[in-house]
Amino acid sequence: MKVSIIGSTGYTGMELVRLLSKHPKVELKILTSRSFAGEDISDIYPNLRGKVDTKCEKLDLNKLAASSDFVYTALPHGVSMEVVPELVDRGLKVIDLSGDYRYNNLKTYEDWYKPHQSPSLLEKAVYGLPELNRSKIKASGLVANPGCYPTASILALAPLVANNLINKDNIIIDAKSGTSGAGRKLSLGNHFCEVNNNFKAYKVANHRHTSEIEEKLTLVGGEDITLSFTPHLLPINRGILATIYANLEENLDTAKILEYYEDYYKKEAFIRVMEEGILPEIKNVAGSNYCDIGLKVDERTGRIIVISAIDNLIKGSAGQAIHNLNIMAGWDESLGLEDLSLYL
Amino acid sequence: MKVSIIGSTGYTGMELVRLLSKHPKVELKILTSRSFAGEDISDIYPNLRGKVDTKCEKLDLNKLAASSDFVYTALPHGVSMEVVPELVDRGLKVIDLSGDYRYNNLKTYEDWYKPHQSPSLLEKAVYGLPELNRSKIKASGLVANPGCYPTASILALAPLVANNLINKDNIIIDAKSGTSGAGRKLSLGNHFCEVNNNFKAYKVANHRHTSEIEEKLTLVGGEDITLSFTPHLLPINRGILATIYANLEENLDTAKILEYYEDYYKKEAFIRVMEEGILPEIKNVAGSNYCDIGLKVDERTGRIIVISAIDNLIKGSAGQAIHNLNIMAGWDESLGLEDLSLYL
Amino acid sequence: MKVSIIGSTGYTGMELVRLLSKHPKVELKILTSRSFAGEDISDIYPNLRGKVDTKCEKLDLNKLAASSDFVYTALPHGVSMEVVPELVDRGLKVIDLSGDYRYNNLKTYEDWYKPHQSPSLLEKAVYGLPELNRSKIKASGLVANPGCYPTASILALAPLVANNLINKDNIIIDAKSGTSGAGRKLSLGNHFCEVNNNFKAYKVANHRHTSEIEEKLTLVGGEDITLSFTPHLLPINRGILATIYANLEENLDTAKILEYYEDYYKKEAFIRVMEEGILPEIKNVAGSNYCDIGLKVDERTGRIIVISAIDNLIKGSAGQAIHNLNIMAGWDESLGLEDLSLYL
Amino acid sequence: MKVSIIGSTGYTGMELVRLLSKHPKVELKILTSRSFAGEDISDIYPNLRGKVDTKCEKLDLNKLAASSDFVYTALPHGVSMEVVPELVDRGLKVIDLSGDYRYNNLKTYEDWYKPHQSPSLLEKAVYGLPELNRSKIKASGLVANPGCYPTASILALAPLVANNLINKDNIIIDAKSGTSGAGRKLSLGNHFCEVNNNFKAYKVANHRHTSEIEEKLTLVGGEDITLSFTPHLLPINRGILATIYANLEENLDTAKILEYYEDYYKKEAFIRVMEEGILPEIKNVAGSNYCDIGLKVDERTGRIIVISAIDNLIKGSAGQAIHNLNIMAGWDESLGLEDLSLYL
Repeated sequence: MKVSIIGSTGYTGMELVRLLSKHPKVELKILTSRSFAGEDISDIYPNLRGKVDTKCEKLDLNKLAASSDFVYTALPHGVSMEVVPELVDRGLKVIDLSGDYRYNNLKTYEDWYKPHQSPSLLEKAVYGLPELNRSKIKASGLVANPGCYPTASILALAPLVANNLINKDNIIIDAKSGTSGAGRKLSLGNHFCEVNNNFKAYKVANHRHTSEIEEKLTLVGGEDITLSFTPHLLPINRGILATIYANLEENLDTAKILEYYEDYYKKEAFIRVMEEGILPEIKNVAGSNYCDIGLKVDERTGRIIVISAIDNLIKGSAGQAIHNLNIMAGWDESLGLEDLSLYL
Repeated sequence: MKVSIIGSTGYTGMELVRLLSKHPKVELKILTSRSFAGEDISDIYPNLRGKVDTKCEKLDLNKLAASSDFVYTALPHGVSMEVVPELVDRGLKVIDLSGDYRYNNLKTYEDWYKPHQSPSLLEKAVYGLPELNRSKIKASGLVANPGCYPTASILALAPLVANNLINKDNIIIDAKSGTSGAGRKLSLGNHFCEVNNNFKAYKVANHRHTSEIEEKLTLVGGEDITLSFTPHLLPINRGILATIYANLEENLDTAKILEYYEDYYKKEAFIRVMEEGILPEIKNVAGSNYCDIGLKVDERTGRIIVISAIDNLIKGSAGQAIHNLNIMAGWDESLGLEDLSLYL
Repeated sequence: MKVSIIGSTGYTGMELVRLLSKHPKVELKILTSRSFAGEDISDIYPNLRGKVDTKCEKLDLNKLAASSDFVYTALPHGVSMEVVPELVDRGLKVIDLSGDYRYNNLKTYEDWYKPHQSPSLLEKAVYGLPELNRSKIKASGLVANPGCYPTASILALAPLVANNLINKDNIIIDAKSGTSGAGRKLSLGNHFCEVNNNFKAYKVANHRHTSEIEEKLTLVGGEDITLSFTPHLLPINRGILATIYANLEENLDTAKILEYYEDYYKKEAFIRVMEEGILPEIKNVAGSNYCDIGLKVDERTGRIIVISAIDNLIKGSAGQAIHNLNIMAGWDESLGLEDLSLYL
Repeated sequence: MKVSIIGSTGYTGMELVRLLSKHPKVELKILTSRSFAGEDISDIYPNLRGKVDTKCEKLDLNKLAASSDFVYTALPHGVSMEVVPELVDRGLKVIDLSGDYRYNNLKTYEDWYKPHQSPSLLEKAVYGLPELNRSKIKASGLVANPGCYPTASILALAPLVANNLINKDNIIIDAKSGTSGAGRKLSLGNHFCEVNNNFKAYKVANHRHTSEIEEKLTLVGGEDITLSFTPHLLPINRGILATIYANLEENLDTAKILEYYEDYYKKEAFIRVMEEGILPEIKNVAGSNYCDIGLKVDERTGRIIVISAIDNLIKGSAGQAIHNLNIMAGWDESLGLEDLSLYL
């Protein structure tokens, strides 16, 4: 399949290029970049040298449409919706990695982001979390790839919410992400010396991903969920670990709740539910498309603590976007996603 | 004052040596070490070279008593209580940095640690959190220096608990610590390659500091508190950041609650309450004796998020132990503790 | 091909397992471990979970021989030579990752290591640096996989030495390695807090790899080479960067010398010679089997500075060991080694 | 003494503020900043909160002159020389932390930097390396504070050069610096994810500090020195370690050469010469004003390897600038510089 990437020189774009370069059914065609048009992608990311030396181009929609079957848009929020309708109109299948098409509810998007420019497409787009929406993804021509924090959070909570095991008023997600989540755009907050040796929370009580998590979990559980979500910045490159707290509705032990998880994810290739006593760590998933999930019931407080870990650039972005491509194309879902974490 | 340190070659012991070496009223006398007796402390920690080149000795209680007015015990839990009674018997003033004398309730200690060998001393010991117990510390001959996580957690919660602003059944402390908190003892969990690039929770729902936090906050608030405490390991050397969640009892905004904090800590030299919109970060406190506290009310959920940051080896250990010495000796509380964080 | 690994639970062993698990022609058979016999490899390295869950075993030579065609020995120096002769006697093909069979000259080995227990095998073993010894490797039954520092150093210097471009008395190799090079064995020197934020030289003027580099470069150039080699410890997990200095024999510019390198390595899949103005960085090779090489002539001093970068666990160890397997088996040399660096 | 800082919000400026805030004889007056005029320095660097909350101002030369006895200029190269003459004209004593006044030879400056705007002042300025130039510094009104790499390099080599122990044609300095050396200015090269886990050389064979090192060592030795200097970027915040190679003129052993060093630096408070067998590490000096120096003779090659370590922001910049102030003011040289490295 001929695949092009719009916005190929951000970290997500680079990760798509890297992963797609070893996908056996994908032929990488056009890589667009506003900042680096005319330069080889392997001069911008020298890890690609010798494997992918494609020259980046400015976006030319007609040329792109003529040479591609499938397009990834790896653009900032608000920019994607300027481009995606044009792609859909030209009959291209699209996976958008921004937040622009993730919401069912237009008002929620506009409350947390900005006025939407193609609300009608919002209705057609499918939220690309394969574990929840596989059949809709398969049938769709426009998939909105989930956010990184929502991926880790929703996958960790869905079995509890779907089975009505927790009180829906007391969910707290304390999430920690590596710095690649902030992208390659320069800012003081991502300057090496400011991040190294440091740790901080940011956007407390107002991060946009809160609304994405709430909307999707509300759909899973069938009743409104409002929760607390706090992101933190880790002095590492890759990985998210979410520590999630909820009050149990009834007195179940760790083993019993793990059964619900095992059952919920029993067909999933990229979810690894840890047995009792084992909890996820970022180093076990960074570099892979896995989401590791572990949990423990705290009998003293009647609370469950669920921990999930992903690579924010893979399962939280480019890897999930390839998983969605595999589903849309009817291929083996693991194609191009076989890498294990390097551990070290 | 003549001060000796029992257990001077762990990270806490080294930190005491480093800080006391510039304390204007302290003369460092004996440094004991089981592992390094006969070696100069500056061969073990070459940062001290030229300033403190004292030879470490095996513990000789009589010699120690003869040459010291004041003793720090920086020993593992369970080992301290074998030594401290001997020191107290010899009339020495003692600050113990282990968990052995921190509890009012013997049963709590024994439930979370092990059988106690000097329970009568437990009653005499004072919990050395200056902001809560200043006058008792001043009058005491045996001070139990608080744990690092409890310091960050109790200071962050005390104003809320003391003023009955929060529901006491829904307190969640999600804490993250640098690796020096685990000390210098070798373990796979602290091997460089296993910690670097990684992040994980540990001892979920059963870390001993849970009980220390609960006991002290219960004393502050006058009614039983049971809470969730989850420690995590950060790939940095120093610093703890605690993100704390509680449900507000009434509808107060961030500014109003900050007033309670400002008032509660208005005389404290080492507490910095951040104004609205600013939150603590580890890099602002690492290397100093400050505890920075910031908070935000999340009106959507009726929840307050309080964030505190300390240097686990200073305000969470050796610095607080010097603060306690200053109080016990009747000196200016800031002596030897003027250092600011290096920021970088 | 049925492949077993003796010593599978060190970092090198794990890396072999991880890489071989995606090698299309390899069936992983027995994984031995003295420390973890009876445990699943994926409990020791949870990144492998779901892909390689083999139970580790104690070494049983007969069982191993019965079920394997090919064996990797990833054992400490001095231990390998106790096992390798037994494997060779049983007709197994072996790649040894220790230093025990790397030397042509027995005396050099014994001067820098210890008395050798199977000197006759030393003569049969082939030094497994594919770029220099491809045909011998292909014909051999016992390949000694090169050390990590020698791989980076020899590949960087071979074109200069082979073409007599430099003075052989003034070669200086200043090398810097990530901490995984020291393995998983606990030591204070690899304790997280001791390595993090730190940088140091170690084993100055007496690291064993000096002799390995000298012997192999002497063979390349045909005359004795004695050089300075200084290893340093980087606070990162993976990667070696070597900065190499030599005095040019004649007045050649950067472009001209790069031509020699391009020519020398023109058929090599895993050597990437950087064009003028570009120099290697660890982040471009970590996670891959590439050796990146760049250089610059300093006309002010008549000196050339060559810089090479590898992943010490891949091109410097397990990856090169798979490259050697591919050569010995007559397969495409890149099988199982297609991974690019993750860059981040 | 009333001290002001021009350019107080870069990393060097902040470090001056932090260190001067505990200097017993200094009253900090005006802090200027182009970017942050009107903001409190403690909002820009919250580590200073509660100790230094001065509001930053735009530079007003007359106001500055009226309220200050002494001025630090912590400005970029090329900008300093626009300001320093005005300060000198107004009778202020000045320590300039840029490269603008470091050179004796105007042509060298202009070859490596740019045309000079106040060459006459160049002649009056004294190079502020206290260990070499103490008496001139004491008598001077304009001191050019040395570069960070030159400080580490010159101090490591001066005893060898002064005593004619080495061949002056084969000196190689392989230096590695933490990222704070690049300042707070945003660039892709200092973006967290690009530096973390990475290591690289930069400005190979053309870094400006080469010329500074050469000029000063030439003065020490009395004959022209041309050398190789290669800087590298370490993924840490603070610290420089320089590994230096030279060919010995005669056959001296490590112990003998250490005697030369001990003698050369016997009166120096901030030089710690390591005994045989011990080598400097960054973690022993970061946070302090020490320069640690160790060395080893490699008898196989007739070469000496000298290793020096400093904190680039302290001994390599702000600390040395305070040392110079202490000398110029006739105070105890260690005032304000007593801090030891934190080790962790």
